[in-house]
Amino acid sequence: MQYFSEDLSVETVNARMGANVTPRMAEVMSALVKHLHAFAKEIHLTQAEWETGIEFLTKTGQICSGERQEFILLSDVLGFSMLVDAINNRRPAGATENTVFGPFHVEDAPIRAKGDNISLDGKGDPCLFEGKVIDLHGNPVAGACVDVWSDNADGFYDVQQPGIQPKWNNRGRFITGADGAYAFRGIKPTSYPIPDDGPVGKMLAQLGRHPYRPAHMHFLVTAPGFQRLVTHTFVGDDFYLESDAVFGVKQTLIAPFERLDGADTLWRSPFDFVLTPA
Amino acid sequence: MQYFSEDLSVETVNARMGANVTPRMAEVMSALVKHLHAFAKEIHLTQAEWETGIEFLTKTGQICSGERQEFILLSDVLGFSMLVDAINNRRPAGATENTVFGPFHVEDAPIRAKGDNISLDGKGDPCLFEGKVIDLHGNPVAGACVDVWSDNADGFYDVQQPGIQPKWNNRGRFITGADGAYAFRGIKPTSYPIPDDGPVGKMLAQLGRHPYRPAHMHFLVTAPGFQRLVTHTFVGDDFYLESDAVFGVKQTLIAPFERLDGADTLWRSPFDFVLTPA
Repeated sequence: MQYFSEDLSVETVNARMGANVTPRMAEVMSALVKHLHAFAKEIHLTQAEWETGIEFLTKTGQICSGERQEFILLSDVLGFSMLVDAINNRRPAGATENTVFGPFHVEDAPIRAKGDNISLDGKGDPCLFEGKVIDLHGNPVAGACVDVWSDNADGFYDVQQPGIQPKWNNRGRFITGADGAYAFRGIKPTSYPIPDDGPVGKMLAQLGRHPYRPAHMHFLVTAPGFQRLVTHTFVGDDFYLESDAVFGVKQTLIAPFERLDGADTLWRSPFDFVLTPA
Repeated sequence: MQYFSEDLSVETVNARMGANVTPRMAEVMSALVKHLHAFAKEIHLTQAEWETGIEFLTKTGQICSGERQEFILLSDVLGFSMLVDAINNRRPAGATENTVFGPFHVEDAPIRAKGDNISLDGKGDPCLFEGKVIDLHGNPVAGACVDVWSDNADGFYDVQQPGIQPKWNNRGRFITGADGAYAFRGIKPTSYPIPDDGPVGKMLAQLGRHPYRPAHMHFLVTAPGFQRLVTHTFVGDDFYLESDAVFGVKQTLIAPFERLDGADTLWRSPFDFVLTPA
């Protein structure tokens, strides 16, 4: 047993753990204490800065509600959500990469027929999304569920505007046939700011960063025998493509958006999803 | 500009900082991102563990109120409060060491005369606290303010039991005279648990740790020309002395508690405070 000292702070705290702690809990918490203490030591954290940190964390917790998760936002803007996603979804070359799930997915969206239109509010530039779900060898994956969602032309998801947008606006699930193909009509997505009127928005401002995400369409692609794919496709000419507030962009997820001559469909975005075996 | 990758996660996030960020903000936040990411990478944090962490932080924020600061409690039990205190209060040999301030200090306690009794509820073992405030050379420090506070015999501070304990129970300020001496009557302090009915208490249980602090008397000693001394004296035979839930104990802060024969004073605890020049 030793009393606390600056030099042996980590060892002293971690030695306090009881004998019946689960091995994983012991591993996670020991590492947390080690890195947390290393942070304070490296920068010589002052008492006033510690107080600022306590206040920031407290406000971040207190603004959370059923509709708002400011700690996830904090994790997102520090690149922590993307890091956890990356660590847990290492994929072979050629497989479609994951990106952040985001807070706006809704379970059990309506299952729609191939080619259906998910834009129910009639706003925005009509866009045809189509492609195939395939395996690493290029074989079609039949019976895959392609669950999609995006914001509307005003930059809001339907769940952010209940009563204003129609229910299930810009959402739907599509099941691939024997050829692995999917297709649906929606709108060319628009960029939007993450909620920036809370502690995290204030922090972003102090870091000289904007709160915008580049325009993207969300995809959750699942099929028996394959890893769950959580990803977006990004609009390549978006102003915020190189400065996504949550670091979600990957080079391989930038999709073509081709201008069409069609009267009711202005854009076409082809994209194939390559699934990794489970 | 580069998109996010697991390998370069830290560099990518920190490169996003704007040009007008203050140097200290940039230093603190860069280090925070570095250590936070290193933590996740070292232990391969799973998505489910990330969710547990988000939920823990959210609950910790939401239980905070005017009367309760669960994030300070979290900082305390991880040894982080003691570390920040240690980093910011390195002292020369012979000087009295700092320890955690704790949440129960109240400004502007009554100034009392030498020898006065601060125990107003008549509970507990009467104890005489006395000694000198001196400088590093042993010279008395006149006009020092010795601000003291402790729990009562039931293990609660007066502010935890408004209406039950008399106001200013076990609190007071004493000003040293030309000889640097202070003296007051209080009670031999008792050990008590930190609030353990919230997320931090649950975490302590999972770590196989108890929530108790060993018995201690708080001291805040200030004098012009000297560093502010925030410390406790500890009762040396306390059951929890070697397992303080917040790691506040230091060898040099364990004080004698001598049994007396006196009818109304059962204990005597002599302790000199050695101040460090500002």
